[in-house]
This record gives sequence, C-alpha cells and structure tokens, in this order.
Amino acid sequence: MNPRGPNVHLIGVDGSRHELGTPALILDLDAMDSNIASLSAHATANDYLVRPVAKIHKSVEITRRQVAAGGYGTCVATLNEAEVMVDGDIEDVLLFTSVVTPPKLDRLAILNERAVGLTVVADHAGNVAQLGEAARRSGRTIKVLGDIEMGSRRTGIADEDILVKLVHQIVDTEGLEYAGVQGYGGGHMSMSDFGERRKIGLEVLNPVVSAVERLESLDLAPEIVSGGGTGTHDIDHELGVLTEIQAGTYVVMDGNYLDVDMRRDDTRPFSPALFVRSTVIGNAQPGFVVTDAGLKEVDVVLGMNHPVIQSGAPEGAVYSVVGDDMGRIDFADPSDHLDVGDVVDLIPPHCYQTIIMYDWFHVVRGDTLVDIWPVDAKATW
Amino acid sequence: MNPRGPNVHLIGVDGSRHELGTPALILDLDAMDSNIASLSAHATANDYLVRPVAKIHKSVEITRRQVAAGGYGTCVATLNEAEVMVDGDIEDVLLFTSVVTPPKLDRLAILNERAVGLTVVADHAGNVAQLGEAARRSGRTIKVLGDIEMGSRRTGIADEDILVKLVHQIVDTEGLEYAGVQGYGGGHMSMSDFGERRKIGLEVLNPVVSAVERLESLDLAPEIVSGGGTGTHDIDHELGVLTEIQAGTYVVMDGNYLDVDMRRDDTRPFSPALFVRSTVIGNAQPGFVVTDAGLKEVDVVLGMNHPVIQSGAPEGAVYSVVGDDMGRIDFADPSDHLDVGDVVDLIPPHCYQTIIMYDWFHVVRGDTLVDIWPVDAKATW
Repeated sequence: MNPRGPNVHLIGVDGSRHELGTPALILDLDAMDSNIASLSAHATANDYLVRPVAKIHKSVEITRRQVAAGGYGTCVATLNEAEVMVDGDIEDVLLFTSVVTPPKLDRLAILNERAVGLTVVADHAGNVAQLGEAARRSGRTIKVLGDIEMGSRRTGIADEDILVKLVHQIVDTEGLEYAGVQGYGGGHMSMSDFGERRKIGLEVLNPVVSAVERLESLDLAPEIVSGGGTGTHDIDHELGVLTEIQAGTYVVMDGNYLDVDMRRDDTRPFSPALFVRSTVIGNAQPGFVVTDAGLKEVDVVLGMNHPVIQSGAPEGAVYSVVGDDMGRIDFADPSDHLDVGDVVDLIPPHCYQTIIMYDWFHVVRGDTLVDIWPVDAKATW
Repeated sequence: MNPRGPNVHLIGVDGSRHELGTPALILDLDAMDSNIASLSAHATANDYLVRPVAKIHKSVEITRRQVAAGGYGTCVATLNEAEVMVDGDIEDVLLFTSVVTPPKLDRLAILNERAVGLTVVADHAGNVAQLGEAARRSGRTIKVLGDIEMGSRRTGIADEDILVKLVHQIVDTEGLEYAGVQGYGGGHMSMSDFGERRKIGLEVLNPVVSAVERLESLDLAPEIVSGGGTGTHDIDHELGVLTEIQAGTYVVMDGNYLDVDMRRDDTRPFSPALFVRSTVIGNAQPGFVVTDAGLKEVDVVLGMNHPVIQSGAPEGAVYSVVGDDMGRIDFADPSDHLDVGDVVDLIPPHCYQTIIMYDWFHVVRGDTLVDIWPVDAKATW
C-alpha cells in the first residue's frame, strides 16, 4: 500500500472527494485559505501580529500558508514540533512549553544551530541557566520569554517580583536574548457570547498588563508579549498590551467554536475546513445506522459529545461515537434511511485531538481531491 | 533523529528505564507476559479459546506472543489492521467490522490471496453477495460469521429470522465458508462488582444463546461463536455457548479495569503493563507541578477523568490533564514538592486511545529498556 494510503490515485480526479476511502480526514483548502486571510486582515486592521499555532495542525504546509499571509513564525508545544518546523524552513518558531531535561536541552542546542529566531519560554531560574548553557553550546543566541501564570494553574510565574528577577537573570545570561513575556489563559476561549467572553478575556489579561507596566518601568520593556487565541482575537487587541495572538483553531475551526460569536461585528468570520468522512457499514435495524468512525477517528474528549453532521444524513440526525471504531447515526424520523456504503461528513468537536489520530490530510478544493499532505509532527518526544 | 526516537541508544543499558526521554509509552514485558499466561491458563481450565484483540495494541509482536501462548489468531477492527497482521504472518485473523465499499472489498480480495483463515462478519444480504464476489476473485474462500445485535444499538442483526436467512445465504454463496456467529455487547465490561457484572453479562448473551440453539436445530451449528471480553472472561464460559472470548485489554490493562473484581476466585489476575512516563516541566507555584503529558499523551475520554499515578509523586497526589500537552499534579499536602525534571509514571484510563497516540512502545524488563516496538497498525483506512 502506498504510504499515503488508498486514495492517492484520486488526486486531481474530478469529483474525487466523493470517492475517497474512509475514514478520511478532509481539509477544505478554500475554506482554510479564507480563514487565514480573514484573521490576517483583522490583525492588520487592529495592529497586532498573528503567531499561528502549528501544534493544532502539525503541518509544515499549513504553516507556510499562515506565514505567507503575514503570520509571525509559528508557535509549537513540543520540541519535536519545533524540529519539524525548523526543518521545514519556518523561521521564528516559538516553543511555548519549557524544555528542562538534559537530553532535550542537547536537542535544543543542536536545533538552534540551524534555526532562525528560535524562541523558548522559562518560568524557573535553574532552567534559565540550562538554556544559557545550551545557547552557548549552539554558538547562537536563543530568545527567551518569561512565562506568566494567568490563574489557570498551569506553567508560569504568578509572583511579579519573581518574574522580574527571572527577566533580569535572562538579560544577564550569556547566550540568551530577553525577548519579552508570554501569558496564556484559555478556559474562556469557546464561550459563545461575545460580551461575556470579552469581560472574562480582559480580566484574564490583568497579570500580563501589570507585568508589562512593571517591566517597562524597569527599562525592561518586552519586545514580544504573546498570548490570546482564536476566541479572543477581537478582544485582546483592545488593551494594546499583546503584540501577538497565539491563534490556532481559526485555521480549520471545529465543533467547539461553531456556536461562538467570534467578532463584535462579524459573528462567523471563519468556516469549518476540517471534516471526518465516514461510511455507513450497517443498517440492519430501523431508526439508526452504524458507521466506521468511532473514538479513534473523531475525538469527543472536549466540548460537545456529538460530532456535527455536515452532510450526508437526513435532517435532524445525530451522530454518536459508540465504539473505538464505530459511530451511530440516530434518525430524527424513524422512517429515515441510509444505505450501507453511504457517506457522511462530520465536523470534529476538537480539531487538535482528531488531527493527531491521522497521518494525512486529504486536501480538497470543491469536489476534487487536490493533494494529500502529511500531519508532519506527531511524535510525542 | 532516529525514527524510533531519542531513546534508542538506551536499549540494553542497565537502569535505562529511568533515563527515557518523555513523554514515552512504556510496556512492561514481565507484566504483559504474565497477563497473557494467566488468561491462557484460565481458558485451558475452562475449555474456551482466546481470540486476542489486536485492535487494542496494533502490534504484530504482541500478537505473536498472544498466539504463542495458545491464542486463536487475532481479531481486528479495521482492514488496515488485518493487512498488517496478515503481513506479520499471523493466521486466523478475524475482522469484526463489516467491509462494504468496493475499494475495500478489492483490498479484502487481495489480502485473502495471501491470508490463512481470514474471517469477516456480515449483517447485510447485499454485503454477503459482495464478499462472495471478493472471495471468488481471490481464488480462496473467506470465512464469514453472522453478526448478532446484542442490544447496544451497533452493528448486527436483532431479528433471528433475518439472521437465519443471512446464514443460509452465506452457506449458499460460492466462495464463502459459513463459520459461525459473532455477538459483542460491551457496556458492562468494566463494572467493578463481579456478581453484578455476571448478572448482566449472562443476560447480554441471551440473543447469542437463542440464535445458536435455533441454528443447531436447522443443522447450521456454528463452529465459531465469538464474543465476550476481558471483563467477562470468567463469566462467558459458564453458558458454554461462546467458543472463544474476544479479550483485549487484559494484555496491558488500564485505569478503567483497575478496580474491577476480575474473577470469582481471583480479583486481580492481571497487572498494569502500560504506562505513560512524564516529566515535571514547571513548579513555579506552591501546591502543584506541571508535566509534559496532556490530552495528546494520555487520553481521558472514557472512564475516570484522572490518569492514576503509578510512581514518582507524593502520596495522595492527583494527576489531571490540563492542556493538549500539559498535565498537573496537585499535591494532597501543600508542603509536598517535586523538582523540575522529576518523572512520574501514569496508568492511562483507556489503553486503546492512549496507544494510538504513540508510534512506539518502550519495552522494559524491570528497570531496563530492552527494546522499542512499533505500534504497527495505526492507519485509519
């Protein structure tokens, strides 16, 4: 079998989207490019940069399109993702999760030798010393952001005095370049009402606003202030404190964001561009059919429990994951019917967890499969 | 980077389990071999066959060990898994999910040419005709089991008359060999109390008992009656109707089964053999630390929300997934402490969904990494 799977021969064939072997992860190129353009225009109009989150899609090709549209490098969650992006000639990669163990610091040093603008975060004095050592070994500076805790009890420094101390340490460490701060708080990102989300979104940024003022007063004004996300991209810029938005989901959207009023004057600037295509494999009983996409093909861990049926099923039908590799479509009207072999397209509840279960994006434009792109950076290390 | 990741150089090094780069999926070989031996002995003593479920681990090497211990072939959920197992020289592969589309029927025919004992299921007359055509093209018979619905509203035939008609069709179709029936109902598999699980487990089998009696009366006695699972392996054999148990999770266990009284006289015959190893990447605040294993590294979609901490954390500490690639350990005692760089081992709540997020098992014996095995059959097609 071709490593790109059973659908390779369909590339470029008119109407081939409807011939794809399933389960298949589908990426709608026009919808994605439109999403990228829409955020880019909004950023330009509102004077912030977009730092596209490659951890969402793990694809060099998608990152290239985000960068071509004006995105400022990319940001990633794992060292492997950083390696893959750098090797895909993406500059200004921000690794927003701390690298702390000696083997990974070795890899970071080796990566930095061939990277342009590599940036990492730190919330720990011992780690700053380690990063400096790695940078000196690589013969090139590494940019460092101080990580600010935003109340979500994850990484980052909550105490401003300690943060200032850490920033001084970064400044004073040979090999490191103090580049600014990062603060991410994401619990409110998919609240549907814009006004409520705005209220919480502005409050969540308080620690960053305060820290930036403090650092400015100490002549340590951050060049980069990174944070925010898809759900707050029309909120964060109001404060003028974030220089860049870490936006990821906007590029393909997912079920969690379908009902979110995204902008104050434009509730749906982004369209779903990611689908799971699934085939009916059984209709032996009345009232429902069974399909070939279950937990392994469409993740339901976050948000709604039900993947949204985009097309292929009767009005009102509901999709449930009912097994590791099996889904069920329950009909609203008991007399509804689908044949064995019929196909439905689903919008996954959480794009990230669904993408990582696939090796390939089936890239379509309209009804035609135009390419098959790898999910490049899936390794966990 | 070596395709097997950053830990290859640690194979065979004394104590190397504690040097592994993380996040890493760990397979404890002694625990796994003991689990395999325990189920094998139980099956021999109680006169049933074990049909090991390779969809759980997707590993040819693990399947080989299950077969070597007396397992009857394997069973898989996807055509790709069947292809990988056949190409790993595993005989008697049962694909327990219907193959219905022409491209997959083509692949099935090609696979059958090189397979020994390939068996599929059917619950649909049109599909039986398709399977016959595929078998004749392959020049070799395909074994078919009639699929019986067990009340869980998934695949299978609920009406016995229709099932009998389908079985007659299988018998009459050139190229197909009628091999028996399958019926799987799994909702009760991880109920902790043995007596309660036994009560439901025996009820759930009613449709199979009834169908087998009916088929016997029609001179269509099934050679294979396949069903059951890890949670009912000491229950199913009582009825004497299942010839084989589709047992999967027993081989590595997971959090969902930790509190399950597994046998009437031996509550814990199987031990956890699968772990996610994770490193503390932040301890900037009191009361908790943050680690590098989140949703992408340890799935929490089923069962308990909390991966169980097997080792490495203070008594009473609780692990939560708090991000796509981030976990948090909350301490029971606020004065507890872990250093950045410390490592914990977690028992995943659901082994299946966790394994599919990794490319490799880090195989350990005691404290030493002894091998790195691929997760062979991850493709979705």
